Parts: sequence; C-alpha cells; structure tokens
Amino acid sequence: MTSDWTRALLTPQCVALVGVSDDPAKTAGRPLQFLRRSGFAGEVMLVNPRRDSVQGEKAWPSLAALPERPDHVFLLTDAEKALDSLEECQRLGVPVATMLSSGFAEAGEKGAANEARLAEILSRGGMRLVGPSSIGVVNLHNGLTLTANAAFAEPDLPKGGIFVGSHSGSLIGALVSRGKRKGIGFAGLVSVGAETDLSIGEICAATLDDPSVTSYMLFLETLRHAEALRAFALEAAARGKPVAAYKLGRSDEAAELAVSHTGSLAGADEVADVFLRACGIARVESFEGLIEVMPLLERLPAAAQSRRGRVGVVTTTGGGAAMAVDQMALRGVDVVPASAATRAKLRDSGIDPGHGRIIDLTLAGTRYDVMKTTLDILRAAPEFDLLLASVGSSARFNPELAVQPAIDAAAGPGHPLAVFLVPDAPDAAQLLARSGVPAFQFPETCGDAVAAALHRRLPQRDLPLDAEAGAAESRVLDEAQSYALLSGAGLTVAPHLVLEVGQPLPELPFAYPVVAKVLDAAIPHKTDAGGVVLGIRDAQELEAAIAGVGERVAERMAGHRVTRILVQQMTRGLGEVLLGFRRDPQVGPVVVLAAGGIHTEIYRDSILRLAPVDLAGAFEMIAELKSARIFEGFRGAPKGDLAALAEAIVAFSGLGATQGARVEEAEINPLFVLPEGQGIMAIDGLARVSGT
Amino acid sequence: MTSDWTRALLTPQCVALVGVSDDPAKTAGRPLQFLRRSGFAGEVMLVNPRRDSVQGEKAWPSLAALPERPDHVFLLTDAEKALDSLEECQRLGVPVATMLSSGFAEAGEKGAANEARLAEILSRGGMRLVGPSSIGVVNLHNGLTLTANAAFAEPDLPKGGIFVGSHSGSLIGALVSRGKRKGIGFAGLVSVGAETDLSIGEICAATLDDPSVTSYMLFLETLRHAEALRAFALEAAARGKPVAAYKLGRSDEAAELAVSHTGSLAGADEVADVFLRACGIARVESFEGLIEVMPLLERLPAAAQSRRGRVGVVTTTGGGAAMAVDQMALRGVDVVPASAATRAKLRDSGIDPGHGRIIDLTLAGTRYDVMKTTLDILRAAPEFDLLLASVGSSARFNPELAVQPAIDAAAGPGHPLAVFLVPDAPDAAQLLARSGVPAFQFPETCGDAVAAALHRRLPQRDLPLDAEAGAAESRVLDEAQSYALLSGAGLTVAPHLVLEVGQPLPELPFAYPVVAKVLDAAIPHKTDAGGVVLGIRDAQELEAAIAGVGERVAERMAGHRVTRILVQQMTRGLGEVLLGFRRDPQVGPVVVLAAGGIHTEIYRDSILRLAPVDLAGAFEMIAELKSARIFEGFRGAPKGDLAALAEAIVAFSGLGATQGARVEEAEINPLFVLPEGQGIMAIDGLARVSGT
Repeated sequence: MTSDWTRALLTPQCVALVGVSDDPAKTAGRPLQFLRRSGFAGEVMLVNPRRDSVQGEKAWPSLAALPERPDHVFLLTDAEKALDSLEECQRLGVPVATMLSSGFAEAGEKGAANEARLAEILSRGGMRLVGPSSIGVVNLHNGLTLTANAAFAEPDLPKGGIFVGSHSGSLIGALVSRGKRKGIGFAGLVSVGAETDLSIGEICAATLDDPSVTSYMLFLETLRHAEALRAFALEAAARGKPVAAYKLGRSDEAAELAVSHTGSLAGADEVADVFLRACGIARVESFEGLIEVMPLLERLPAAAQSRRGRVGVVTTTGGGAAMAVDQMALRGVDVVPASAATRAKLRDSGIDPGHGRIIDLTLAGTRYDVMKTTLDILRAAPEFDLLLASVGSSARFNPELAVQPAIDAAAGPGHPLAVFLVPDAPDAAQLLARSGVPAFQFPETCGDAVAAALHRRLPQRDLPLDAEAGAAESRVLDEAQSYALLSGAGLTVAPHLVLEVGQPLPELPFAYPVVAKVLDAAIPHKTDAGGVVLGIRDAQELEAAIAGVGERVAERMAGHRVTRILVQQMTRGLGEVLLGFRRDPQVGPVVVLAAGGIHTEIYRDSILRLAPVDLAGAFEMIAELKSARIFEGFRGAPKGDLAALAEAIVAFSGLGATQGARVEEAEINPLFVLPEGQGIMAIDGLARVSGT
Repeated sequence: MTSDWTRALLTPQCVALVGVSDDPAKTAGRPLQFLRRSGFAGEVMLVNPRRDSVQGEKAWPSLAALPERPDHVFLLTDAEKALDSLEECQRLGVPVATMLSSGFAEAGEKGAANEARLAEILSRGGMRLVGPSSIGVVNLHNGLTLTANAAFAEPDLPKGGIFVGSHSGSLIGALVSRGKRKGIGFAGLVSVGAETDLSIGEICAATLDDPSVTSYMLFLETLRHAEALRAFALEAAARGKPVAAYKLGRSDEAAELAVSHTGSLAGADEVADVFLRACGIARVESFEGLIEVMPLLERLPAAAQSRRGRVGVVTTTGGGAAMAVDQMALRGVDVVPASAATRAKLRDSGIDPGHGRIIDLTLAGTRYDVMKTTLDILRAAPEFDLLLASVGSSARFNPELAVQPAIDAAAGPGHPLAVFLVPDAPDAAQLLARSGVPAFQFPETCGDAVAAALHRRLPQRDLPLDAEAGAAESRVLDEAQSYALLSGAGLTVAPHLVLEVGQPLPELPFAYPVVAKVLDAAIPHKTDAGGVVLGIRDAQELEAAIAGVGERVAERMAGHRVTRILVQQMTRGLGEVLLGFRRDPQVGPVVVLAAGGIHTEIYRDSILRLAPVDLAGAFEMIAELKSARIFEGFRGAPKGDLAALAEAIVAFSGLGATQGARVEEAEINPLFVLPEGQGIMAIDGLARVSGT
C-alpha cells in the first residue's frame, strides 16, 4: 500500500474530482479546466451528487458509483462532506487523496470535531492524505494540474527539475509565475496543507528516485514532522539533489500568523534555522532568493567544514558590482581580490586588473573577448570558491558583449560562476537560465543566495533527533544532585559540601571565603527567598549565615523549614557564560551557549545547536558568541580557557544520552571561564529529569 | 551666470559633443545617436578635429569654430583633451559642461596633475561642471539624452515625475530599465560623477522649481558636499517633493570600493544614515526598494514625531501576506489588527474579519465587492496609518478581482493604501503604477519601503551643519580642565580636587573613599602609566598613593615628573554609559551615546545623532540604546535617572556652541547613571579644543 501512494500522488492513472463545480471560474471548478487544458493523459472522473454532467462531461453521484477505482482523489467539498468521501475512499482502497477544505484544527469547536473524526479515519490506515487545506498537487511533466490555484490557468508553464513542497497553497502559484519570468522551470509542486497525515518530508521523499526531479524548494511556515523532513534531506544529499528553503516567521508577528492560519504551534525560528542547517538545507532569507538560488546550489557543493566563502568579482560597472559586494559582505561572505599571480596572468592577456578588491573592466572593457578571457583566468585561480560577473546596461540589449562570454566561460572547467544583471534584462536572464548559469537580478538576492550556498554544510548524519514527546512526569533536581549529574558528565563544578541544619559544623575540605545557599528543589529562586549568603569568611560567619537563611526562608515562605544548606567555595572567573540544554518538541535535544548575566536578554547574545555537538562544533559556537571575545585577550585582559569551555560544551550537550534518569532540561548559570590552562567551573546548576 | 547653468543643464538650446565618434556603437558615438533618436529639439553641434563629418553630420574642428555658442558641452575625450576643451568653454562663456572622462583623483600621479589643473580652471569661475566621470545628463521630457549609457538606446523610456541624481553612471540605466518594467517613469537623470564642481545637491536643487519634477531619487556611493545636499532636501521638503536615497557602503568592503572607484574618502555609513534622516530623506536599504518607494512617499507625509507606524493588512492569501508582515515587522513597523468597531462594520457588510492580526479574505473572498468594501472600511478606521492589500494568484490574469478594487478604493478619501502582488503580475503592477497606487512586487522591498516611508521624519531645520574644516591647531585639555568645561555646560561631574605634588595635603571637601589620578594632558592613558589608585580610604593612604603614582609614572615614562594629582570621590552608579562629541568633516557636530565598558565594542551598542539634540531627541537615543534597558527597572533593579541622563545628553550635545575655545572633540567615559531622582555623574572626561 505504501508504494502505491508514492506513485499515485504525482503519476496517477485515474483521478477523481469530488464536488467538482459546473462553473469553471469557481474554485471547485478550476481543477477540471486545468487538467483538460494541460493535457493530462490519465482518466479524470467527476463526482457530483447533484448533477449528471459537469462542464459538459459526465458526472457520477458518488465515488462508489464510478466505473473504475481512482488512485488519486481530489476532495473539493466542505470539511464534513470531504470526511464522508474520505471514508468512501478508504472503503474502496484508493491509495491517496488530497483535501482542499479547511475547517479543521484552526476552526474552533466544529473544527475540533472534524479534526477528531479525521484522525480516527486516518488511524484505520490503508490510505494516505495530502492536506487538509491543500490547494492541490501538480506534476508539470505529465500535465497533472490537480489544483485550484488560479496560477495554473496559464499555458506554457516552465518545466524543469525543481520540486516544490509548500505550506502555503497560494505560494506555489507565485513560484511558478516568478520562475517563468526568469526561465526557471519546475518538475512538480505540492501544497502540503496542514500535514495531518503526509508531511512535507514524506511527500518530497516520494519523488527522490524520480530522475526528472533534480532539486527541491521548500516554502515553510513552521517546522512540523522534523524527523521526516530530516530523513528526506539526508537522502536528497546522498543523491546530490540540493534542497533550499524559505521559512516564514523571523519576526514574532509572522510566527503568530503561521499559528493562526494553520492551527499549529509555530516552532521557534531559531530552532528551525539550526535544524535546517544541520540537515544540509540552504535557508534563504528572501522569497526571490528562493527562486534564484537553485542553479547555484546545483553547481556549488555543500562544504564539509564551516566556511565564509571566497568570492571573486569582475564587473563592467563599479556601482552595480558594489551593490552586490555590499550585500554579500553584510551576510558574512568574503569578497577577495585576485592574487598577484592572477593579476600577472590578466596583464599578460592585455587586461588591466586595477588595484582594487574587484576587477572593474569599465565601460571600455564591455567586450566579449575581454570578459571571456578574464573569467577563464579567474575561474582557474586557486584563491576563489566562486566567481561573480556583474554586467551593466549592455546586458539589456547586447547580451553578446558581456553575458554570452559568461555563459561560454561557465561551460568550461573551473570554479562555479554566477552573473548579476544590473539593469532589467529579462532576455539575458532567460538565456542564462537556459544555459544553467546562476543569475541574479537583485543585489540583495545575490547576497542572500551566494551566502546561503557558500555557508551550506554537508548534513550531520549522527544526530539522535529524538523528537519523542516530553516525559509526562519529571522532577527537578536540587543543586547538589544537579552538580552530581554535571560532574558525572565530566564538567567541573565549584567545590561544595552539603550540611544538615542542626548538625555540628564539619571542617570544610576547601578554603574560605564561601557562599551558603538553601538546598531545596522546592525553592528554585533561592535569592528571592533570602536563602543565599555571600562572602562568608570563617566558621563563625558560616554558623550565623546558616541561622539567618533558616529564619529568612521561614519568614518569606510561610514557615517553610530549611533542613539542608549547600556551602560552596567562592571563585572568580575572567567572565561568565550560560549553558542550557532542553528537548525541543520538534527537533529533540538542543544546547545553548549564551552570554552570562543580563547580556543574554539585552543583546540576545546566544548560540543554539542541535545536541550533541562535537569539539569543532563547540568551537564554532564560541566563535559566534559575541561576548566570548572577552576571553580572547580583549583590551589587554588575560585569555580565557576556551579549550576547556569547548570541552564543557561538548560534555554538557551530551546530557541527553546520560545513563540513568533521562535529562529533560538543564542549565548552568553562571559557568565561569578561568584563565588559560585553569579550566572552567560551574557555579550554579539546575536539572529536570524523568525516569529513574 | 548662476541662473544660466541651471537652465542650460537640462534645457539647453544648443549642445556640443566634443570628441564625438563616427562609430555609433562606441561610447563616444552613442550620445549623438541617442539625441537623434529621442528627438531632442535643440541644436546639436559636433566637434571632432580629425573629421569633417561624424555619423553623416557636419563636424567642426573646435568649439571656437562653431557657428553658435553652445550652452551645454559634453566632453567625450580623454582627461587631458577634456581639460583643454574645458578651458575653451570657459573662454567662450559656455555656462555648463559635462565631462565623461575619468583619469583624475583616482588615477595615480598623472591623475593628480589633471585634478590640480581642473581645480585651477574651475577656480577662475564663470562656468560650472558636471563630473568628471559623469556618464551624462538626461531630460526625458525634452529628449535631452546627453549620455553614453547604453540603456538610453531604448525607445519609449517611461516619462514621469522622478528626478534621479546618481554617483554611479551605470545605475541611471538600471533605474530606467527597472522602472519601465514597473510602469514607473522619470523626469530626468544625472550621473553626477566625482562632484568636483557641481554636487548632487546643487544639481537636484536646480530642478526644484520645475513643475515636471515631483520627487527625487538619489543613488549615493558616499556622502560629499553635505551642506548642499541638506539645503536641497530642506527646499524639497518645503515644496512637498519627497526625496528617497539608496546608499552603498553598509559593509566595510563596499565602503572601501566607494573610495577606490571615485577617489574620494567614503563617509562613515552611520553618519550618513543619521544625516539623511535629519534631512527628511527616506533611506531605503534595497535597490528595488528605491524604485518602489516613491509612490508611497508621495502619499504618506513625513512624520513630525518619531513613529513606528500602524499598518493594517488585508489579503486574499495567508502565506503571501505573512511574508510581507514578516518583512515589515523585522524593520520595526507595527502590523496592527482592526479594532472591535472596525470588525463590527465589516461584519455588518457581510465580511468575516476573522480573529487574527490581518484580515484574510481567503480564496473565496477574492471578489471585487468584498475587497472594495473591506478597503473602504479599513481606510476610514482610525487605528491605522497605512493599509496594505496583499493579492494572490488572481493578480496575474484577473486584476479585476482584487487589484482593481484597490485602485478604486485608493481614489477615495482615507489612509494611504499600498498593494503587494504575490505572483509575478507585470500588468497589474503597471495598472497600479498608472493609477499612482504604491505597489510592491517583493515582500522584502515592501517591508523596506513601508518602513522607510513610515519612519521618515520632517527635516530638522535648526541644525548648525557646521562642516568647516577641523581647526589646524588644537590642544587636549587635562582632566580637571575637561571637568570645568563639562560643568560649565551644565553636566554634573564627580567631586574632585587638584593637588600639587609636594604641597601639604589639605582637608578634602568630600568624604573618603577616593581615587587618585595623575593629572597631565600628556598622559591620556593614565592606568597604563600606573597613574591611578582606587579605593583610598584615608589621608595616610592618599599620601602613599600620591607617592606611588609619582614613582610608577617616572619608571614607566622615562623619568616623566608628576606635578599634579586629581583626587576624586568614589561613586557607584546603577550602571554606566559613554558620551562622545566630535566634528564630522562632512556633517559637522555629532553626538554619540553608547553602552559603557566593553559592550560598546562587543555589541556595537551605540547611537549617533547630529548635534545638538533636544530633550525629545535625547530620550529617543536612550530608547534606542539596548543597554539602557538596565536603567528601566530591569530584573527588579531600581530605575535609573533617565530624565537626568536625557538632560545630560542635551547639554553635552551643545558643546559645539560653547563660548570661548571651540570644542573639537569630547568624551565622558564613564558617565554613571544614579537611581531615579539622584541624577548622573561624569567619572572621567576628556576634551580637545582649538582657539582661545
């Protein structure tokens, strides 16, 4: 049955339209019109209980009445009728259905009832569903325009190798029309809707072995079914089929919209960002960048190591190139000058390389031979990862001058080559697209796509991606238990001792000064409860401090009795950081490194990764944390022990795999970083665990 | 003479092309071809010493040989010949010339000689120059395509009200071609080149009284001749003609390019940013945003007060609108929901407003009457400043459904209305442009332009803009003198006293603990010199500290003798900030408020303004400084005296107008902010002054 749906989804032999309208202008009337216009070769059967004929074709009263069993049914009715039909599909053994209707999780009380009934039907198994809230499924290679999206009324839709999975139905239309203008074609497009059954990852995975699909474009509103998405991304990478994604919700406002109009809980954008990166998916930040990035991804392999990327730029217009340079540099890409050797080669060929970071051929150099020779030399130069040719006004009407040489140069061996078109030059853009040369029409999308492609990494294959539901029951460990957990994981914690209140004071195994803190998992906010005394210099002060803690806690917490005190040696670090571990409901364990103190919140200075991370990954996190600069000998201060910090991050990020109780959440705040060679030290810790 | 050039620049009666080529495909051959094709009605005379005829027309050997005196000469030769011709222009009384050649400041030794000769010619007065490195001057209304830019080979260039001034020559072509696709037309375009004589501000100002010019678009590579630019911007604002600018150089790399290819020193991007804002110029961040922003600026007046802006969004596609919402919100614009009253009105008209932040009419609501009624109601609702209608796939082939109602609604009274087109929909875009309705084709440029328009302020008319050159001679004040200067300006400084080393210790007029610092303008880095002792608790410790300072300074600074010590009472603040004042060579006095300590550098947490600022401006600076949140009762801490901080900023920013010596530069680091009601206190200060 499983293999059945993967074939029937995009290459069905017989489709049925349930609830098809006689009015071709209406939403429920469009799919028939589109299927006929696009010349879909399979059977198309119409179901409409109120009419014998629809748009001049015979209609049947029900699915059961059809002379043949369809293998893909498009449900165009309202939610309740669609559920009835879905049950009928199930009885008849239809492998896959697509549901247009909304009216489920997002639609209040009535929607909740529909949602429950849908879940019940799907739980019986035997068939798969795209949607609800799917505007349909399109395969441009066989004319299967099984969709109500008005954009598919158009003839001559551009065919190509890109397969699109989209949370938004209307956006598949926008992608096709915008791609057409650029000469970029598609293999298929699926509006995945609410993903109640089939997820975007499963749907894309179903096309992995289709040779007509060479790459993937994802339009994401939120992150759902992360495991399936990751499984697909790993397989796509293994087949050398690149995946690009645009995700809504960088702003809180848009994240909220993603919730309200799909009825799901939006994943935090930052988690999604690191997840996509770990999957080897190139995330672009602009919608047009999503459309323009693909030819570049197809030519520029993902990096095994972290890289900024080295781009060489040649231009016929200084101002135009400067716009693109600005946008690349703002996104962390290095625009590098040609080496002395490369400049010498250019001069030997009669080309003046100038003295600047880019090679400006100027208006006078806007000639085929100059551009071609320059690009041939630069594409062979070892100092670059990628070349960008920026072409000025000539691109509009004289592509033979500076666009054609780029196409011809790109056909030879060498670094990937992309072209930025400064004027509006649709013919040149189409010419480049047809030749498979990455082409950008906006400096911002050029910067966006180049950065996304250069920073794309090979997927991480060793992640647990443990997205199981959080444990129903969990308990918070007290500070001493938390320290034991952290020590067990290999982290250094500040020397400490647990005292029973009322027992005689033992000799401390470490020197004063010390701090005394109430030890009680029921008191997470120790300071607010009056449960912390700092700077205790001797045994006498310690006695007094213990008594004082008992009194204050009793007073502030309705007579709560303090039975245990944690005494800890006071330590000074060069500075502090925060380490956090939690299990994200979508992507599983994640680890956070953040600036300590108030800066995490004020400057949002924190770095997230899927856990666990290795040593290279930990050093990357440190390099990205702005405040970690204070440990690099900042303003003459001593250097911090960053090697120890990296090891601590690795150890802490492995808490998800600790033996014994399952760690649900943990935090060290602060973690002191000591001078080089002296390590790190956890000064406070908290953990929540489940199980035994 | 002055009025002569302003007319001759764009409406000359007779132009001469010096060095015009017989080959119409060559750079120096194009202007003649373009002028003939565009039907320029004035005289066009050709000068070429080597030919009697050029492109079939009669040519003269020199300017002097012409039968008539041209009033605008385009110099197409190399730099040396162009300078000869420029002198000839001067002798003949030609009011204005435009010079194509590069080969001046940017071109090494030979260029420097040319530059000197050019300056000498211009110093004689009597004529004005556009360039050098100008690709020319275009007036679309009279066919004056006096340019070598290949983009002007095109017939049917779109005419309109926008006048373009551009540092980049090739970009005027890109603007025209990109505008044409959107149906956006231009009045004129000038490539201002290196601005050796006429600046972009003067050139734009020359067109202020031209009724065919309704708005201005600036493409800036750097900030030069700020005073002229500001004078123009103030006049443009007074006439209600909006000005938009795109400026290169947000990244350091592009700032460097702007230097290398125009030979000028790039202004710091941040200074340019606040300068443009203070001029009431709307700066966009994307090139496409520059082209799309103008209709919005023409309909949305600049704000008198700081505002985020309240945008109401209505859409036929949730995903498309969410992209635009994301981009607006990321740029600090508030997307606000309709009020209960507005929702009730919509329901009364049979329209379901839903429950979310935006009004999603969905596919089913993609109808003229639904969209028109919704927009009419929303445009009258007091909760908005601006409405955005997002239109999905129907915009491509059925603009009558949801685009036309927006055009019709916009014709009535109410808030400005803009449209975001989700698919590629060139016909709808042109329809909207012809109707004058702001239209966006990319979510990113929508966010960019909406933010630029909503955040645009009325220009500040009361700024000194004292861009005179820095004083040749200046002196650094010592700490006590700096305190006197700051006190005189109304700032509170920490209690202090100056002691002569060797004199008996007087009774201090303030309590211990104190700090002792070497007082010597020749020792700016007091701590490094061993010249600071903190936490002095009594007179005995003070004696010892003074002796210690003397010894350490003598040891570390080759026997330098300490003669004076500044003793200062130690103070604690809730936190610290840094205040800086300097004179920018382009825009004059500026003031900086920054996070104190290491955070200025690590987090780049600093806010710049043109000086002086008023109290409202000072509070705005505080609101923008991230670290100032610690003074707002952050995490239960007491509130800081922000009123006193604002007053301190106002007083400090007025240092430029201090009586007596002219303050060139000043810094207070740190300035402590005390708890509410207790004011602020300068703990260290430094000033550099010139004059007496």
